[in-house]
Amino acid sequence: MSKPKVFEKPIGVKDYLPHAVAKLRRIERQTLECMNRWGYEQIITPTMEFYDTVGVASSTSDQKLFKLLNNRGTTLVLRSDMTAPIARVVSSLLKETPFPLRLSYHANVFRAIEEEAGRDAEFYQTGVELVGDPSAEADAEVVALAIASLKAAGVERFKIAIGHVGFLNGLFEETLPGQPEAQEALKACLLGRDYVGYRELLRSLSLTDAVLKELEGILRLRGGQEICNQALQLSGTATAKASIQHLCEIWDVLKAYGVCENVLIDLTMIGDFSYYTGMTFEGYAADLGFPVVSGGRYDNLLTQFGRPAPATGFAIKTTRVLELLDGVEETQPERVLISYDAAGRAAALEEAQRLRGEGIIVVTKRVEAGQQDTNSAGRDGYAKFISFVGSQGTKGEQSK
Amino acid sequence: MSKPKVFEKPIGVKDYLPHAVAKLRRIERQTLECMNRWGYEQIITPTMEFYDTVGVASSTSDQKLFKLLNNRGTTLVLRSDMTAPIARVVSSLLKETPFPLRLSYHANVFRAIEEEAGRDAEFYQTGVELVGDPSAEADAEVVALAIASLKAAGVERFKIAIGHVGFLNGLFEETLPGQPEAQEALKACLLGRDYVGYRELLRSLSLTDAVLKELEGILRLRGGQEICNQALQLSGTATAKASIQHLCEIWDVLKAYGVCENVLIDLTMIGDFSYYTGMTFEGYAADLGFPVVSGGRYDNLLTQFGRPAPATGFAIKTTRVLELLDGVEETQPERVLISYDAAGRAAALEEAQRLRGEGIIVVTKRVEAGQQDTNSAGRDGYAKFISFVGSQGTKGEQSK
Repeated sequence: MSKPKVFEKPIGVKDYLPHAVAKLRRIERQTLECMNRWGYEQIITPTMEFYDTVGVASSTSDQKLFKLLNNRGTTLVLRSDMTAPIARVVSSLLKETPFPLRLSYHANVFRAIEEEAGRDAEFYQTGVELVGDPSAEADAEVVALAIASLKAAGVERFKIAIGHVGFLNGLFEETLPGQPEAQEALKACLLGRDYVGYRELLRSLSLTDAVLKELEGILRLRGGQEICNQALQLSGTATAKASIQHLCEIWDVLKAYGVCENVLIDLTMIGDFSYYTGMTFEGYAADLGFPVVSGGRYDNLLTQFGRPAPATGFAIKTTRVLELLDGVEETQPERVLISYDAAGRAAALEEAQRLRGEGIIVVTKRVEAGQQDTNSAGRDGYAKFISFVGSQGTKGEQSK
Repeated sequence: MSKPKVFEKPIGVKDYLPHAVAKLRRIERQTLECMNRWGYEQIITPTMEFYDTVGVASSTSDQKLFKLLNNRGTTLVLRSDMTAPIARVVSSLLKETPFPLRLSYHANVFRAIEEEAGRDAEFYQTGVELVGDPSAEADAEVVALAIASLKAAGVERFKIAIGHVGFLNGLFEETLPGQPEAQEALKACLLGRDYVGYRELLRSLSLTDAVLKELEGILRLRGGQEICNQALQLSGTATAKASIQHLCEIWDVLKAYGVCENVLIDLTMIGDFSYYTGMTFEGYAADLGFPVVSGGRYDNLLTQFGRPAPATGFAIKTTRVLELLDGVEETQPERVLISYDAAGRAAALEEAQRLRGEGIIVVTKRVEAGQQDTNSAGRDGYAKFISFVGSQGTKGEQSK
């Protein structure tokens, strides 16, 4: 193993320079403010959690968890999402707080294996959890809030695709009974949006024509409310029907929110977390291959932490929103440079303090007595230049 | 090793509930805004760094570093401060950016051993680095900015104690030549503010009366500008004299900033980072035993990253400021609860959107048709209650 060079950082992690930080912080602030206006209160949890509790519950595969030992020999993980840590807090510190609980967060999360694929090992998520409400109304609220949050962050063109794990579970159980491997393989294709692989797999399964047609048909189940009616005709199982009914109710509430233009129903959609139990959704922005938000209902996770409760939520992939808005110029506040020599110092620093009190950005620069600061390179990026040099407190101003 | 309980988190790390997060976020925002107005631009670096680069340079002792292996078998550390990571960025990504560089940060940092002593294993720091300026003017700027930042954070009563590692080094070299162990032991006493131990150690060293008196005398070197004059008479080494001269210059600039009431010179002060090479300082708030800010000049650290440059900076212990302000009430924004049934839904959600657009916090609640939401427990914490129940869109308002 060769030693890393002094200027190197680990693969898969990033430095954010001031320009990027200004944008990331704006996205973070506006997203959290939006969530706050919907009544979601922010919490912060530790970067490290126990492997045996949050690590196991997190639904991130074991090889993707960053693990370390504390000095008692217990295995810790760097959190891989915020849903499991929040479930822990809801079941402990917030145990006595009545439901529904509306919580928000902005946090960095970690995935160990991603560096192999050039993916981020550390990235930012901004999200919410709505705990203690099993209704379609609650699912619709988090979808509508995801839309409002993306808009608040500055994402203009995007679609939220909504599905339901119960529909696919019911349909596969009905059409492929006793074939769990085939069911899982088909779900894996859908999760990876590998529709070619899905069709090939179906044809290898020696199905009846009717079932083959039915299972191929779901690939066309993407669109508006009419999709629900088509789906009801596809599967007769109670699970599938109840799932579709729930989606119809969500759609009704989303209509009342006036956000349906940003939503489509996509019954081939499977959330990428194993703890999802109901509605799941993903948001895609124009020109970006990755989802910028994902979420869903997870009614069993809280049980693992000792306070059984239905829950629903989402996480915006804040780092991806940052990439998406890379070309969008941020407003740059004006900067003032104040130069001074020893004689002008007191007056210069007083003026700097006055301007900063007005919210203006001021950089001060000591120069030698009698020398005007004529080095224009040093003034780059300044809208205004004020000199307290050789002037015993009278000042010279100069705009760029 | 017993398994942790599901509700447990590792020792030394914290959950911050909404009330604390609101305060922590306010402190963070106001501190960073203050630093921004002084021309310091924010950067973000990764949580994980290479042990062999930033880990070794960080000045945190090896046993206090959280270490983990990446999947290539290279040892990583969770950053223990932000000074070393910023030195890496200044020497790599910002290599072409001319000095002086003014950078700020807000970050969580990690110390492995602290949990043994009931100290935090993860805590927040908000700070700045001013890179490329060796002058007393630059040192005074960061001290004045530390004062402005603490005030911006809401800390009202505090003192910044300024010292200089060169003075003590020069004095001990002069009075205890060839006795490095004794010198280090005396410095350790001063670092721990163990003045009794310092005196006892002096008496055990078989010193001449003059030297004993001189080295005991520095314990009284705490106060205003007059301390510099007294110190000049104590030590005649060039190092000590130059250090005192530098402190005098810093004091002059701090007078021009008008902040001397918050400053005292304390020549017994040693910064707790081994990379400090000049002026060091610590800020103590009334009623708090720990420093809330510490900083100093580190002119050799950048050399380790390949871009030699003088530098000075500080870190506010944000988590301690939060503890300090624990009793201070934050302004709580008013919250509105809107209840609705199916018939009132569209009107209710439209009204919620309108109010949120005005910046008001609105929580919505679906109730059954015809049932007024008379459960007052559910309304706790709401300043106003609006009902769209059984009213087909006409609304009932009720203030608390």
